[in-house]
Amino acid sequence: MANEVTLLDFWPSPFGMRVRIALAEKGIQYEYKDEDLRNKSPLLLQMNPIHKKIPVLIHNGKPICESLIAVQYVDEVWNTKSPLLPSDPYHRAQARFWADFVDKKIHDVGRRLWATKGEEQEAAKKEFVEYLKLLEEQLGDKPYFGGDNLGYVDVALVPFFSWFEAYETFGNFKIEAECPKFIAWAKRCMQKESVSKSLPDQHKVYEFVLQRRKRLGIE
Amino acid sequence: MANEVTLLDFWPSPFGMRVRIALAEKGIQYEYKDEDLRNKSPLLLQMNPIHKKIPVLIHNGKPICESLIAVQYVDEVWNTKSPLLPSDPYHRAQARFWADFVDKKIHDVGRRLWATKGEEQEAAKKEFVEYLKLLEEQLGDKPYFGGDNLGYVDVALVPFFSWFEAYETFGNFKIEAECPKFIAWAKRCMQKESVSKSLPDQHKVYEFVLQRRKRLGIE
Repeated sequence: MANEVTLLDFWPSPFGMRVRIALAEKGIQYEYKDEDLRNKSPLLLQMNPIHKKIPVLIHNGKPICESLIAVQYVDEVWNTKSPLLPSDPYHRAQARFWADFVDKKIHDVGRRLWATKGEEQEAAKKEFVEYLKLLEEQLGDKPYFGGDNLGYVDVALVPFFSWFEAYETFGNFKIEAECPKFIAWAKRCMQKESVSKSLPDQHKVYEFVLQRRKRLGIE
Repeated sequence: MANEVTLLDFWPSPFGMRVRIALAEKGIQYEYKDEDLRNKSPLLLQMNPIHKKIPVLIHNGKPICESLIAVQYVDEVWNTKSPLLPSDPYHRAQARFWADFVDKKIHDVGRRLWATKGEEQEAAKKEFVEYLKLLEEQLGDKPYFGGDNLGYVDVALVPFFSWFEAYETFGNFKIEAECPKFIAWAKRCMQKESVSKSLPDQHKVYEFVLQRRKRLGIE
């Protein structure tokens, strides 16, 4: 069977980046389609009628929605190269737990870093650092969350690194000062082509967030 | 290796019920510990220090948190009997999608059915019926979401059936009138001992919700 792979995505989306990294880790060629989220394509609406959100991975005409589900799908279909999830069920459950933690905590608090001000923003900064420290603890002395190789949690988490200039500038704080081990891990990930080619430049994301703040009337 | 299995749970929790059903489907003996959520046990705080929530499945001393992760773990460890997730990666992705849909939509809208009033409650009723119809469509002519046998989506979804008397009484509507196919599916699931023994009586849940409404000052 031919492998026709298309990714419906939006370049600053950390969720889209996850799928990009997974596909790159597996060495899969695919067609990338950047969506205009204010004018969604008929293909996106057809492929994800329930949530109408990117990313959508389309494999031989069939859609896989929700980024972590798509990453697991990629890992299961192209299972002969670069395994992302551990083979042991307990370690797999742990990887799923931390990827879920990223989904439940990091995205939301990240948004509050650039979209709020004053006390609310201070609380977000405190929370953000707290979560990163929990993740540092979880990383321990390993090079990656996946151990010696990039794994599922790395793929779920590292996309947010492309938002760090925006977080730091609008949040007026330095993440490295608080969480040097986290930054070292992110930079280690960025040395991999699968990651560096999947993440946009931090400054480009910063400028995107700047425009978004303007549209939302935040100064 | 001995299989020592403990479940930290709270009886009206649909999330806890999922793990109960999965363990029952696999025929696993386990110790059930009902938590007092206003006075959480040291064991719960130790086993789930991040979220401090039930359910927690403890297998040979090691915790697995988050209900859908625990159900997948049970399915992967005890993999010789009653498979819950399909073996095909695409069908597995679809099952994960719909279980995630239940997590993102049903619990929240269910809460709004009994915890809000007026326009907000009317909107919740409309939304709830809309979601159930989407699920009915997904079920199609199959007896279960899993096909001929109970599967992952059934396990994720059917616990909410134990809340239906509460939803209907406080929401002042009849779900069966709108979604007869959904109710037929839920009753079909209830014919399985793994489900019926894992779900509390609807009236007991109704009385629990009644008390909760009183505590929250909703009349």
